Amino acid sequence: MTDIAMITAAAARLSGHARRTPLLNAPLLDKIAGRRVFVKAECLQWTGSFKFRGAWSALTALSATDQKRGVIAYSSGNHAQGVAYAAALLGAPAVIVMPQDAPAVKIANTRAYGADVILYDRATQDRDALGAELAQKRGLTLIRPYDEPLVIAGQASVGLEIAEQAVEAGISAADVLVCCGGGGLTAGVALALEAKAPHLRVRPAEPAGFDDTARSLALGVVQRNASASGSICDAIVTPEPGKITFPILQRLCGQGLVVSDAQVQHAMALAFAHLRIVVEPGGAVALAAALFCDDLPQTVICTASGGNVDAEMFRRALAV
Amino acid sequence: MTDIAMITAAAARLSGHARRTPLLNAPLLDKIAGRRVFVKAECLQWTGSFKFRGAWSALTALSATDQKRGVIAYSSGNHAQGVAYAAALLGAPAVIVMPQDAPAVKIANTRAYGADVILYDRATQDRDALGAELAQKRGLTLIRPYDEPLVIAGQASVGLEIAEQAVEAGISAADVLVCCGGGGLTAGVALALEAKAPHLRVRPAEPAGFDDTARSLALGVVQRNASASGSICDAIVTPEPGKITFPILQRLCGQGLVVSDAQVQHAMALAFAHLRIVVEPGGAVALAAALFCDDLPQTVICTASGGNVDAEMFRRALAV
Repeated sequence: MTDIAMITAAAARLSGHARRTPLLNAPLLDKIAGRRVFVKAECLQWTGSFKFRGAWSALTALSATDQKRGVIAYSSGNHAQGVAYAAALLGAPAVIVMPQDAPAVKIANTRAYGADVILYDRATQDRDALGAELAQKRGLTLIRPYDEPLVIAGQASVGLEIAEQAVEAGISAADVLVCCGGGGLTAGVALALEAKAPHLRVRPAEPAGFDDTARSLALGVVQRNASASGSICDAIVTPEPGKITFPILQRLCGQGLVVSDAQVQHAMALAFAHLRIVVEPGGAVALAAALFCDDLPQTVICTASGGNVDAEMFRRALAV
Repeated sequence: MTDIAMITAAAARLSGHARRTPLLNAPLLDKIAGRRVFVKAECLQWTGSFKFRGAWSALTALSATDQKRGVIAYSSGNHAQGVAYAAALLGAPAVIVMPQDAPAVKIANTRAYGADVILYDRATQDRDALGAELAQKRGLTLIRPYDEPLVIAGQASVGLEIAEQAVEAGISAADVLVCCGGGGLTAGVALALEAKAPHLRVRPAEPAGFDDTARSLALGVVQRNASASGSICDAIVTPEPGKITFPILQRLCGQGLVVSDAQVQHAMALAFAHLRIVVEPGGAVALAAALFCDDLPQTVICTASGGNVDAEMFRRALAV
């Protein structure tokens, strides 16, 4: 299980390899929000999302033999790119199973990092089964996107940095809003802050219709989403909270926050205008919550988890 | 005159007030460029451009009385915002003279920082004369955009950071491409690197048709641009090199680089896709040169000087 010792060890392996991304803010954005909003800009991370951290953490924990044999991952795109690039840096072969409706830029980039990409149909095929079968056949190590302690430990390094950067910014209390799909980043950040900054409370943020985590937290039992697709927030559409991540969220997180696709697009446009960063829909959910949800304290920190978005989708967000 | 002592003093005043912006790069961008490209992301600076540095440097050097009386600046938008925000932080009144065809976002933001904005016609009115007259009438201190030693010293802090970050990134030799209008940033970076990293050579980058600096450097005499407007690179369209800046450029800089508007738009789209930052046309000129010019070494560092761009202009760059 992921604990602060495993997190610290992962952070040491990541040191000099992952970027310490900036904690951004802007006076004109605060005016719009009516509160102080700090943004952990993981869109500036290698491969454009925090996923590189978990991938590097997991891959560098493998034996040299296992690295040489190779890894496999299934992902809508950000975990794919994180694993593909980490594998390339380590000289490990990587097979990535991606839904065929993933953003073109994510598929293209995963291939450009040198991975062998296999596309599947999100509606009719089970990516977990597909991944497990391929892994067994080729002797690859499966790198799960969130239900994997070493991956959670890698994502937790975002939380360690937030703890340090909150001190640098003079933040003594805040809600930390985290874009939540399977819950790997949310669980990791929550564990890191429990150890290093317990005055900062984590709250998962999700798109409307895919608020399995918010509902699961509210009811105390894991809830599934009614649909497997249909949100612009492709990066964080998962059927239900993870088996390993959910108990961590249940123990450490506050109430979930839910935002509409329109609010997400508005948040993307405001991040463009006031922070000058590119945030993808699934990565803008926490910022949307920071800007448009009530029931928040005077200071919030939110993750801008990723910035891999097709130009057409970004153009649409700016046109709203 | 700006020297390393003045630069170091300005950097000390800026410490804790300006952001130390990241030096970004991306493996897939390097592939496209055919060389290693590092980007100093000043679009992530307060007010969205490096101009905050020079403004803060100049304003904090004023006496308390002069600060209280207020300042005036003339600018197409980035210097305007830098001065307006620095003045607001220091409680100094600010009058900003802006061309009426400046990007709407720059005018709106300058007003939002609390400045008194006065618009003028770029084709028929002389902003220098207008600024000087207003300054005298109201007893305001004029903060020149580039021909001012304290402003150059503030912009030079970009160069001090590049010198440090080049060491961190293991860069032993490189050309440093700087988006060049009046030459304040270019001169400042060149002076800082002369003192701290003389193995890094500065080269100004300009848009085609507004390459007054490149031509002036080539001929050894100040050359004017034929036109005062007509480029998408609004931030760096100035009639001719500065009186104070040009001799510095002449002494320290390599040959100028010139790019087309189409190359600038392409660079903006690639910065969007691979660095996930928003760069305005005038701020993308150096990146365009890094990507599309020949006659460059294996490693280049370029400034992404600003990110204040109207949504419509950005949408157009992504559509190309």
